[in-house]
Amino acid sequence: MQKERVVIIGSGPAGLSAAIYTARALLNPVVLTGVQLGGQISLTSEVENYPGLFNPEATPTGPDMVELMRRQAEHFGARLVYEEVTEVDFRHGPPFTVKTHGQTFSADAVIVTAGASPKHLEVPGETEYVGRGVSYCGTCDGFFFRGKDVAVVGGGDSALEESIFLTKFADKVTIVHRRDELRAGPTLQKRAFANEKIGFVWDSVIDAIEGNGVVQNVKLRNLKTGAAGDMTVDGVFIFIGHYPNSKFLVDELAMDEHGYVITDEFMRTNVAGVYAAGEIQDPHYRQIATSVGQGVAAAMQLERWLAAKE
Amino acid sequence: MQKERVVIIGSGPAGLSAAIYTARALLNPVVLTGVQLGGQISLTSEVENYPGLFNPEATPTGPDMVELMRRQAEHFGARLVYEEVTEVDFRHGPPFTVKTHGQTFSADAVIVTAGASPKHLEVPGETEYVGRGVSYCGTCDGFFFRGKDVAVVGGGDSALEESIFLTKFADKVTIVHRRDELRAGPTLQKRAFANEKIGFVWDSVIDAIEGNGVVQNVKLRNLKTGAAGDMTVDGVFIFIGHYPNSKFLVDELAMDEHGYVITDEFMRTNVAGVYAAGEIQDPHYRQIATSVGQGVAAAMQLERWLAAKE
Repeated sequence: MQKERVVIIGSGPAGLSAAIYTARALLNPVVLTGVQLGGQISLTSEVENYPGLFNPEATPTGPDMVELMRRQAEHFGARLVYEEVTEVDFRHGPPFTVKTHGQTFSADAVIVTAGASPKHLEVPGETEYVGRGVSYCGTCDGFFFRGKDVAVVGGGDSALEESIFLTKFADKVTIVHRRDELRAGPTLQKRAFANEKIGFVWDSVIDAIEGNGVVQNVKLRNLKTGAAGDMTVDGVFIFIGHYPNSKFLVDELAMDEHGYVITDEFMRTNVAGVYAAGEIQDPHYRQIATSVGQGVAAAMQLERWLAAKE
Repeated sequence: MQKERVVIIGSGPAGLSAAIYTARALLNPVVLTGVQLGGQISLTSEVENYPGLFNPEATPTGPDMVELMRRQAEHFGARLVYEEVTEVDFRHGPPFTVKTHGQTFSADAVIVTAGASPKHLEVPGETEYVGRGVSYCGTCDGFFFRGKDVAVVGGGDSALEESIFLTKFADKVTIVHRRDELRAGPTLQKRAFANEKIGFVWDSVIDAIEGNGVVQNVKLRNLKTGAAGDMTVDGVFIFIGHYPNSKFLVDELAMDEHGYVITDEFMRTNVAGVYAAGEIQDPHYRQIATSVGQGVAAAMQLERWLAAKE
């Protein structure tokens, strides 16, 4: 059992920000990075909307930003352990127990930043073209599709909200939906139907995403007729939901019905000494900047809580 | 009367971040910068705790970061107007009215990021040595004072919290207080009195801060005896309070008893269509990263609100 002051679970923007702040507060944090250092942004090709990270001649990539934050966290003394958390015990703490495949940590306080993952179509070409036409975030990537044609997959509120948002940029937004009606609320539906840039392909799915370095085409299939076809597009936005990476927290932290960890305005979970930040507790924003702010807030609250206990 | 979609009041990290996001959402924002582009960070000598802005060979300065965010906001189409807001009318909108000395704007939505200001001692040397020994933020600057001796001015909760925090770094923290007892809560007082690194100079004020490029000395004066003296220190941390820059918002937005604008978790004020972000509504964190996150959140909520109205 390795005794620690602070264990941070996850290494996306929230986790590395919490690491920078707890390290600068001399709390000597351990970061359990999970399978992918940097989380979702490690798959992001261009980051142009993170305030202050600006270089129009060479737009920073997601991996660039991960590398900067990793070095910054280690510079101040954070220790990164490249393991995934398999199990926690928050009910009998503090100290809290956090296990990976290889190690068991005992921590006076914990920050959970295990993130969320967009649901994937799981079709050929999807993973290959992430950041080169395939996107899971209109707010992040819409700006790159000015004057282009894009497909949107999904039929819920966020699919329609993002489609309407994308019409600011794209010439044509085609919503591909597997049913013949939408799940989204009536007001959103009305706005989408009234928008001249938005078209619909009903009862259909995308079977493959194709291109030549960047997305150029999707293979469509009608689920009712079986008819197959092609659609020329420059981008595919997939809005079929996210899932928070919170399975290992079941019975340990209070969550909402979708599995998001519930936090208050001070990033506190229902367990005193356990904080959460980033997308594991944020279904609203999902931005690097908002996750960073939450990670910093959690670190500051944790520091104050530990100081008050001593 | 100049008609606008979005007016952003203030140009600190929250304001410029909101400008980047509303500009990327093609809302063509106007930023009314106030007297100091960048707000408080324009006076910050080194920024080493903003996640992702990392260069150990040449630590970025506050003005560096302001310049990056300004260029980023303008790159996406934000328009900066170097004027200060003198008057607003939020009660009869939308559209809302925002006036500067020279111009009147009408806006469909507004983000207020006018910031807060630390209270100053207003003694010789204070302004001169800001960022070179004089600081208003222990979380930000404590790390620079490892193995040094510092003075702290103040006797409230934040003065003691910050003093205890500073003992992680400094060899000696001397609290200079104008009375012979502290205003801080009893638990904090107990912790401060028990801390061997913390000393007290009672009934005293600092009359001047002196140095040679960096802080070296403070001139002390005992208010009861009139006795004057010197104290050798490497830093002076001033924690005598902050005031939100919200005078021009009185009767327009709901505020708490200290003048902070009240926001909910979605950065909404009590007026639909008017959002607030950054230190004007945040007495807790006061970090660049947290203000940036709040500015982004406000911009995204505003965008959704405008879209839903249309």
